[in-house]
Amino acid sequence: MLEELKKKVLKANLDLPRYGLIKFTWGNVSAIDRESGLVVIKPSGVEYDDMTEEDLVVVDLEGNVVEGSLRPSSDTPTHLVLYKSFKDIGGIVHTHSQWATTWAQATKSVPALGTTHADHFYGTVPCTRELNEVEIKGQYEEETGNVIVETFKDIDPNQMPGVLVYSHGPFTWGKNADDAVHNAVILEEVCKMAYDTLNLNSDIGSIDNNLLDKHFLRKHGANSYYGQSNRG
Amino acid sequence: MLEELKKKVLKANLDLPRYGLIKFTWGNVSAIDRESGLVVIKPSGVEYDDMTEEDLVVVDLEGNVVEGSLRPSSDTPTHLVLYKSFKDIGGIVHTHSQWATTWAQATKSVPALGTTHADHFYGTVPCTRELNEVEIKGQYEEETGNVIVETFKDIDPNQMPGVLVYSHGPFTWGKNADDAVHNAVILEEVCKMAYDTLNLNSDIGSIDNNLLDKHFLRKHGANSYYGQSNRG
Amino acid sequence: MLEELKKKVLKANLDLPRYGLIKFTWGNVSAIDRESGLVVIKPSGVEYDDMTEEDLVVVDLEGNVVEGSLRPSSDTPTHLVLYKSFKDIGGIVHTHSQWATTWAQATKSVPALGTTHADHFYGTVPCTRELNEVEIKGQYEEETGNVIVETFKDIDPNQMPGVLVYSHGPFTWGKNADDAVHNAVILEEVCKMAYDTLNLNSDIGSIDNNLLDKHFLRKHGANSYYGQSNRG
Amino acid sequence: MLEELKKKVLKANLDLPRYGLIKFTWGNVSAIDRESGLVVIKPSGVEYDDMTEEDLVVVDLEGNVVEGSLRPSSDTPTHLVLYKSFKDIGGIVHTHSQWATTWAQATKSVPALGTTHADHFYGTVPCTRELNEVEIKGQYEEETGNVIVETFKDIDPNQMPGVLVYSHGPFTWGKNADDAVHNAVILEEVCKMAYDTLNLNSDIGSIDNNLLDKHFLRKHGANSYYGQSNRG
Repeated sequence: MLEELKKKVLKANLDLPRYGLIKFTWGNVSAIDRESGLVVIKPSGVEYDDMTEEDLVVVDLEGNVVEGSLRPSSDTPTHLVLYKSFKDIGGIVHTHSQWATTWAQATKSVPALGTTHADHFYGTVPCTRELNEVEIKGQYEEETGNVIVETFKDIDPNQMPGVLVYSHGPFTWGKNADDAVHNAVILEEVCKMAYDTLNLNSDIGSIDNNLLDKHFLRKHGANSYYGQSNRG
Repeated sequence: MLEELKKKVLKANLDLPRYGLIKFTWGNVSAIDRESGLVVIKPSGVEYDDMTEEDLVVVDLEGNVVEGSLRPSSDTPTHLVLYKSFKDIGGIVHTHSQWATTWAQATKSVPALGTTHADHFYGTVPCTRELNEVEIKGQYEEETGNVIVETFKDIDPNQMPGVLVYSHGPFTWGKNADDAVHNAVILEEVCKMAYDTLNLNSDIGSIDNNLLDKHFLRKHGANSYYGQSNRG
Repeated sequence: MLEELKKKVLKANLDLPRYGLIKFTWGNVSAIDRESGLVVIKPSGVEYDDMTEEDLVVVDLEGNVVEGSLRPSSDTPTHLVLYKSFKDIGGIVHTHSQWATTWAQATKSVPALGTTHADHFYGTVPCTRELNEVEIKGQYEEETGNVIVETFKDIDPNQMPGVLVYSHGPFTWGKNADDAVHNAVILEEVCKMAYDTLNLNSDIGSIDNNLLDKHFLRKHGANSYYGQSNRG
Repeated sequence: MLEELKKKVLKANLDLPRYGLIKFTWGNVSAIDRESGLVVIKPSGVEYDDMTEEDLVVVDLEGNVVEGSLRPSSDTPTHLVLYKSFKDIGGIVHTHSQWATTWAQATKSVPALGTTHADHFYGTVPCTRELNEVEIKGQYEEETGNVIVETFKDIDPNQMPGVLVYSHGPFTWGKNADDAVHNAVILEEVCKMAYDTLNLNSDIGSIDNNLLDKHFLRKHGANSYYGQSNRG
């Protein structure tokens, strides 16, 4: 079932340690088959070195396990909320990568301080509000998804493929699992450089809006002219 | 004697440079066989590249060498105090890893600033008090163990598997040698991110207690639901 | 066409990830054949792992594609302005390397704080002024070249082989592609150390002019005595 | 001539990039044969990848080339001054390693902030005074040696195997080339941790003298008890 998608989800999971985004079993990648509404996701707490396609778990959008003998990632409910709310996305990544997690722990959104940021994220990468006691003690992982969706009520997730969860860490997404990993790598890089930039010059703020538009739009959308084809 | 335990202790020692926690011969791992009360520990000042199972030293809880032709690690008395006081632990690691040592040198305890910390350490990772002249000039390594035990008089070492020794560096422990190394890696990661988080937002403090409970307890204890089995 | 030059440009492009200067397809290297006035440059958005000599694009100084089936780098117009204005240079590199980009995002020039800097850059590495709306919305990449040239109206590009573009990142150059990569590596290193130096001692300023002269001139120019031959 | 010593000096030079202490041709290692008074040193500006034993240069203590077809390192006069003044040392290393160079550029001595430092350097690692114009324009490299010796007029170089040269970078030494490299690695590590420690707690100062004595003397000197034999 979904053999092609499983191959891609396995590769994307293995890319996390390869790009230095995770240690041990922290982090997870999933992807959705929009036609069937089924999601392939990493099992909970399995070492990356040992993971095979057979270990991956298939769940439906209500969280029922459709295939697989292992428990799905404990963050599965968060992924499902995002797939249900962000209709265009095909893959999701969650990590505790150092610099994005540092911003999440500092409970700060990441302003667009340069063109590297603007090439991939169309404006400030938001940090969610803090979860309250009821949310934490209730369906915590699902509430984590809900607070992300709430944060994006005025933001287009197709132009802002990532978020920081308050006191926790980053989620990123994309049109597929590989794209979501790509955005996780870039978010980490952007978070590191934003941190250092503000340390070097605390007076600096978001870049000029014209420069933001120029860089985001030359890579994304109808009039993009970067690369060998339009990605939009 | 204790061949299985020696294999594990050797592997755990070799993991220290593999995870970037040590340079040269700094650092050491031991494990205890609780039935016989014997401890397997790294020899003093031997290069990791050259180390074999035969180089490991077996000592009893009074520090007598029971097997091995090399001197045991100079930190052996510290390990023995911890094994005698913390009855449930099976392995101990000492390193001078960069970020944990930085916090120890700054003589500061590490607050729980995010869920990465809360997943593994149930609250603030404590820094010991300073040793006094008598303790330093006396049985220094044993006193180092004593001051750790003193620091834990109101802390459960099973829920707080690490400590920073004032002006010195970290010790971590776990149910076996591998688990102790695992905690050493995580402490290093947590120390780095706590440092950067406070640099980015000096107003930030320990995370909400509900979030701390949620993350620690979903991984540890009777009601844990992370991974493929309960670790508690 | 220009087979030798293509080999060198391919190698120089592949050196960028090898030296840790880029992620994914960010960054590009070109070189010019001064006799024919033709420039060999990286194609836009192609992964480094997959790149071959055949993928490289040959353009003339007006930007017309003379050979190659792929689109040239979107930064090509910037390279061409520099080749036309800086007559002695043979190779150009553009990256978003972390530390040079951090200085560019902080919109700060990099003072010569030590002899490592002075060995390669003869004084402060300048940051350009901000581009205005007309420049950004017009021929943006060409204007980026123009603002670099404007920045160098009183600086000799042969003694200052690099620049930071405001809110963007570094360009470096040299007598050939390999030399330009060399200068990109050094600029990154110098930017990291300058950042840390100012963080450690905010009172520090540019080094003594005699020391600057000594170091730059013992490596460069008529009386150099470093290495096995004069590089001047 | 001096074939054994050349092997060791070549290995020690190749260790510099292996330990991440240098980029390109920056840095050099030498060793002295005290019986003949001859010094083996790295040639100037040769890439490490290409270096062979035949490339090494043999000079006498006056700087005359006794063997070798290449120019010796431009820093040779500095090495010779140190060998003539510090009678017990057998090897010298110079690098522009990031953290030691950062302290040198900040023109600050490195206080002993922890036991990692105390295990290897018996107190504050000094930074030299600034060279004056006459010294820079005169026999610059020899004057660099002289200012190091001046800095050590009340310091025992056997207990303090390294120094920072003002605005420049570190020199370390030891009983042979390998020991000098070892001390270069440790100085780099100590400089990084001291920088971060002061950033985390600006009130912190040198560790207690009893702790300094304990750690330095348990590894060095007549009563040392670290490792498998006394190194003193």
